[in-house]
Amino acid sequence: MKVKKLKSDGQRSFAVVLETGEEAVENLLAFARAHDVTAASFTALGAFRDVKLGFFDIDKKDYQPIEIDDQVEVLTLVGNFAIQDGEARLHPHVIVSGRDGHAFGGHLLEGHVRPTLEVVVTDEPAHLRRRTDAETGLPLLVP
Amino acid sequence: MKVKKLKSDGQRSFAVVLETGEEAVENLLAFARAHDVTAASFTALGAFRDVKLGFFDIDKKDYQPIEIDDQVEVLTLVGNFAIQDGEARLHPHVIVSGRDGHAFGGHLLEGHVRPTLEVVVTDEPAHLRRRTDAETGLPLLVP
Amino acid sequence: MKVKKLKSDGQRSFAVVLETGEEAVENLLAFARAHDVTAASFTALGAFRDVKLGFFDIDKKDYQPIEIDDQVEVLTLVGNFAIQDGEARLHPHVIVSGRDGHAFGGHLLEGHVRPTLEVVVTDEPAHLRRRTDAETGLPLLVP
Repeated sequence: MKVKKLKSDGQRSFAVVLETGEEAVENLLAFARAHDVTAASFTALGAFRDVKLGFFDIDKKDYQPIEIDDQVEVLTLVGNFAIQDGEARLHPHVIVSGRDGHAFGGHLLEGHVRPTLEVVVTDEPAHLRRRTDAETGLPLLVP
Repeated sequence: MKVKKLKSDGQRSFAVVLETGEEAVENLLAFARAHDVTAASFTALGAFRDVKLGFFDIDKKDYQPIEIDDQVEVLTLVGNFAIQDGEARLHPHVIVSGRDGHAFGGHLLEGHVRPTLEVVVTDEPAHLRRRTDAETGLPLLVP
Repeated sequence: MKVKKLKSDGQRSFAVVLETGEEAVENLLAFARAHDVTAASFTALGAFRDVKLGFFDIDKKDYQPIEIDDQVEVLTLVGNFAIQDGEARLHPHVIVSGRDGHAFGGHLLEGHVRPTLEVVVTDEPAHLRRRTDAETGLPLLVP
């Protein structure tokens, strides 16, 4: 993972580039911790060599995994960074496609980059907090 | 709907969080009117309990509806706010997926949130106007 | 193509609107050259009358084309601008859908607008460079 600060006054922004073999979720969280990112949004594109998507089952209160063990284009990966109990939290949704162009998506549970993932992060001079929702068990934003 | 201003000087930005049962299009328009948003872009993710997508039929000059009466992940919802004849206008496109991960999308005609929709709005210190296009009947941006 | 500067101090932003018949990739590159954009990200939505998507084949080190010769909604087009050997480079990924809502996507090789493509560009006060990667032959970001 390589990080370049694009803008440092007022509202910081970063280019974060992941390389072959790096896992996206853990690396983005490591980036947030390293740069004290407490409220930010991001958009990314690139490709994965495999990806695990999640569909949130409202009744089971859990993510049902959808595994794609194949090279896919990362068409769009969007999400935000927030804080829960002092820890960085990531909420990422992703859309991918294979050789025939059909698109699949879900919550990004895990994805290994090949050959690149290009992320632009817009940091906000604020705090965003998440709190576990009693009804769903999900860490929802509480603005 | 809860709104938190993330940045207030120069270029405003907002976190807008919608809750279970709230309809996305009408709430986003209400947000724009309440905060005098006349030129802005946004990106969102979350989930709907049902959604009505539109495919614009060039010949019929109208949106053909595609209704999904089921829980879906909102993979990406992007769009912009502009002004037409003094009124706030929203142009939203959305991509959703169900339990098997297949992605569907279109113009967002209507969507009811469950359990959350997290929207980050970047407001621009400018005006964007729309004007009804004679050929298509669509309210196109006139920069 | 019409361009409106939305913000000019510190971090520039632009609304770029393409019209019927205009090809997206060449016009976005022309925009970047005209406005000296050397590091920027963008998000777009609208519609194409035809589109050529690419899936990058890691073994062949080349894009396999997927051609859709039909009207499609541009659900989301995301990407970034960078510089390689002094020339503007565009990295665009797109997701489109037809009449039945099914979503397709890939690297945007070529797309002809109908009736509009609305692009918001956030320019960064920095430089982003690409360099051809020996292993894949791809112009990767080197932050």
